[in-house]
Amino acid sequence: MDKQRVYLDHNAGAPLLPEARAAMLAALDAGGNASSVHGEGRGARRLVEAARRDVAALCNARPEHVVFTSGATEAANLLLSPRWTMGRAPLAFGTLYVNAADHPATLSGGRFDAASVKVFGVDADGIVRIDELEQLLSAHDALNGLPLVAVHAANNETGVIQPLGEIGRIVRAAGGVLVVDAAQAAGRIALDIADASADFLILSSHKLGGPQGAGAIVARADLMMPAPLLRGGGQERGFRAGTENVAAIAGLGAAARVALAAMGEMQRVGDLRDVLEREILLRAPDAVFHGRRTGRLANTANLSLPGIKAETALIAFDVDGIAVSAGAACSSGRVGPSHVLKAMGVADDGGAIRVSLGRQTTQADIERFLDSLSRLLGRHQGRVRAA
Amino acid sequence: MDKQRVYLDHNAGAPLLPEARAAMLAALDAGGNASSVHGEGRGARRLVEAARRDVAALCNARPEHVVFTSGATEAANLLLSPRWTMGRAPLAFGTLYVNAADHPATLSGGRFDAASVKVFGVDADGIVRIDELEQLLSAHDALNGLPLVAVHAANNETGVIQPLGEIGRIVRAAGGVLVVDAAQAAGRIALDIADASADFLILSSHKLGGPQGAGAIVARADLMMPAPLLRGGGQERGFRAGTENVAAIAGLGAAARVALAAMGEMQRVGDLRDVLEREILLRAPDAVFHGRRTGRLANTANLSLPGIKAETALIAFDVDGIAVSAGAACSSGRVGPSHVLKAMGVADDGGAIRVSLGRQTTQADIERFLDSLSRLLGRHQGRVRAA
Repeated sequence: MDKQRVYLDHNAGAPLLPEARAAMLAALDAGGNASSVHGEGRGARRLVEAARRDVAALCNARPEHVVFTSGATEAANLLLSPRWTMGRAPLAFGTLYVNAADHPATLSGGRFDAASVKVFGVDADGIVRIDELEQLLSAHDALNGLPLVAVHAANNETGVIQPLGEIGRIVRAAGGVLVVDAAQAAGRIALDIADASADFLILSSHKLGGPQGAGAIVARADLMMPAPLLRGGGQERGFRAGTENVAAIAGLGAAARVALAAMGEMQRVGDLRDVLEREILLRAPDAVFHGRRTGRLANTANLSLPGIKAETALIAFDVDGIAVSAGAACSSGRVGPSHVLKAMGVADDGGAIRVSLGRQTTQADIERFLDSLSRLLGRHQGRVRAA
Repeated sequence: MDKQRVYLDHNAGAPLLPEARAAMLAALDAGGNASSVHGEGRGARRLVEAARRDVAALCNARPEHVVFTSGATEAANLLLSPRWTMGRAPLAFGTLYVNAADHPATLSGGRFDAASVKVFGVDADGIVRIDELEQLLSAHDALNGLPLVAVHAANNETGVIQPLGEIGRIVRAAGGVLVVDAAQAAGRIALDIADASADFLILSSHKLGGPQGAGAIVARADLMMPAPLLRGGGQERGFRAGTENVAAIAGLGAAARVALAAMGEMQRVGDLRDVLEREILLRAPDAVFHGRRTGRLANTANLSLPGIKAETALIAFDVDGIAVSAGAACSSGRVGPSHVLKAMGVADDGGAIRVSLGRQTTQADIERFLDSLSRLLGRHQGRVRAA
C-alpha cells in the first residue's frame, strides 16, 4: 500500500502482513506441486501442512479438520450443499436457513435451489432474531433432510457480533448443522471450534492480513462433510480437488499465526475506533451509527451522514488519500443501498459509510480521516439535517 | 527452486517466471480489493484487466471472453455443468462426453451425475478415437439437452496432441459444445480460440510459469455460459463470485505474455527432448516410450524401463537432485498405474516415468538426468528385460 494513503477498509481486505509476504515469497521461490513425490513436492507439502496447523490453532481446532479453499466464497459454496456424507453414508439437508444480514456468498444459498433456502432476520441492532430462527426450525420439514443453518460470526458491514452460543444451541436442538462465516471475526475475536457453537467455521485469508486467494473451512469433527464442490484430483483428502495454492496457503498460515499472537491489540484498535466515533459526532452531531448499540468488532464503524451520499463521501475521502467503503466490496464497483442495513430496518441508509481499522491503524490515520471529514462537511453546509 | 536441482517436472508445474514473480510482488504490495471503488481497489482492478488482455492475447480471444478462476480444476468444474444460460434463457446439456485420457478434473464429470457422463477412448498412440466419439454423438439422446464434449488439447502425461480441428467439426455437426482443457498446451503450442475448434479453453497459471491459484476459461463468444459454480458477489461479470486473487491473476497475465513471446523457443526444447530420448535408448535399448509415434508437446517424454518400478526410479532421481514424476501429480503422493496409458492399451506400464522440460532446461540438465539414469541402470543390471 502507498505509505501516503490511509487505509481504513480492512473489512474489504487487510494489507498483506510482512510475515505473510515473507511466507509467500519463500513458498514461491521454493516452488513445487504439493502432490508431487519429489523433493520440491515434499517441500510444498510441508508448507501446506504447517499452515494447516497455524489455521487450526487460530480456531482451537485439529489440523486434520482444516480444508483449504480458494477463499471464503468457495468455502461457503462448498459447505452450503444439500448433499453431504457422514462417514461413507449419504446425508441430506433439506432446507438451508440463512441470515438476512449474511454475506452474499452465504445468502446466495450455495448449492441449494432457491426454493430450499429460508431467511431469518435481524433486529434493529443487527442481532439475529432468535425467535424467528426458532420458529423456522420448529416448522422444518425433515422429509428432504436435516436443517442446515448459516450465519455470520460478525457482520462485514457493521461489525455486529452474533450470539453464536445461543444460535448453536437452537440449531443442535433442532438436529441441524451450523455453518458460521467467521471471515470478519477471525483474528478480531476469539474463535474456538471446540466450544460447540459452530459445526463449521469459514475463514478468509485476505481479511486476516494474508494474501487473496486462500480460505479455509474448519470443522469441529470429521464425521460429516459436504460433497466436494471441485472434483478431480484427490487433494485435501478428497474434499477439494485442484493443485494447492501453496504460496497463498503459506501466507494464510502466517497471517493466522500473527493474528492469534496479536489478538490483544484489538483493545487498542477498539479505543481508536471509539475516539473516531466520538470525534465524528462532534463534527456531525446528526451522524447515524449503525450497529453501535450492541457488541461489535473493535475495528468497525458504520455511519450515515444525512444529506451526503455515500458515493460523494467515498470519492472525497479517496481524493484526500483515504480508503473507506460504502457497505461491502463484494460486487464490482457497486455503491447501492445496503442489504445489511435494510435487514436492520433502516428504511433509507442515505448511503452508509464503513470505516474499518486494522492493527496498523494509527492515531494519525484517524486524524487524517477526521480532517477530511471536516472538509467534506464544510462543503455540504446546506445539507438536509435530520430533525 | 534450488539451483543445484534439475527440475524436469514442468507438466506438474513450471517454476515461477521472474516476470510473473515481479507482477505478483507489485500486486501484493499495492494491495486492494478489485471490487472496491477507492484508489487501492481501482489499482487492483487495473491489474486484473491488464492480465485479462494478456491471457486473451495468448488465445487470440477477446478480453471480455476471459473468466478468471482459482485454477484449471475450478474452470473444468465450472464448465462441465448440465445447466447453462444462453443470453438470459436457460440451456441444458444432457450428456457429457469425456475422453478416457483426460485429466481427473475433466474425467470426474464436474457437475454432471455419473450416469450422464460417457467416455470415449484413445488409440494406442493416445489419439482420440474419432470413430468412437462420432458414434457416441450420433446416438446422443437430446431429450435432456445438448451434448457437451470435453477433451484435452495435449495430454499431461504423454504430451500427445489431439486433432482439435477434426473433433470440433464433429461436435459442431452434432449440435454440441466443445470444452478443451488446454492447461498443458498453452504456451507450448499455438492456441487460437477464433479458429472454431473449441468453444471454450481451460488454462492453468502454474503450468505456464505463473503462480499456483489462478486459471481461466476463455470463450469463443459470450452467448453461452455455464451456471456459476461459486455464487455470491457479482465478480467476473457474475460468472465467478469471490474476491479476485489479484496477485495470482497478475502473475498469470505476465506468464501468458512471456509464453506468447517465447513460443519460438519450444523448438529448442523439442530438440533437447529428442536428444534425451535418443540418449535414453542408447543406455536402455528396451525402454518403451509412450505416445512417441505421434505429434506431442515438445517438452514431454514418457517412458517405461522394464524391470524398474517408477517409484524406485523417482526416488533414485530425486536423491540425485532431479525431479521427474510418475504419471501426473494430481492425487496426493499417489504412484500407481496411469489411467492415460491404460486408455492407450498399455496393459502394464511397469511404472512409467514422465520427464517434462521447460524453456529454462539446459543441455547440462539433460546430462545430469542421463548420468543419474546410467547409475540407476547399473544398479539394476539383473532386471528383467523385455524380449
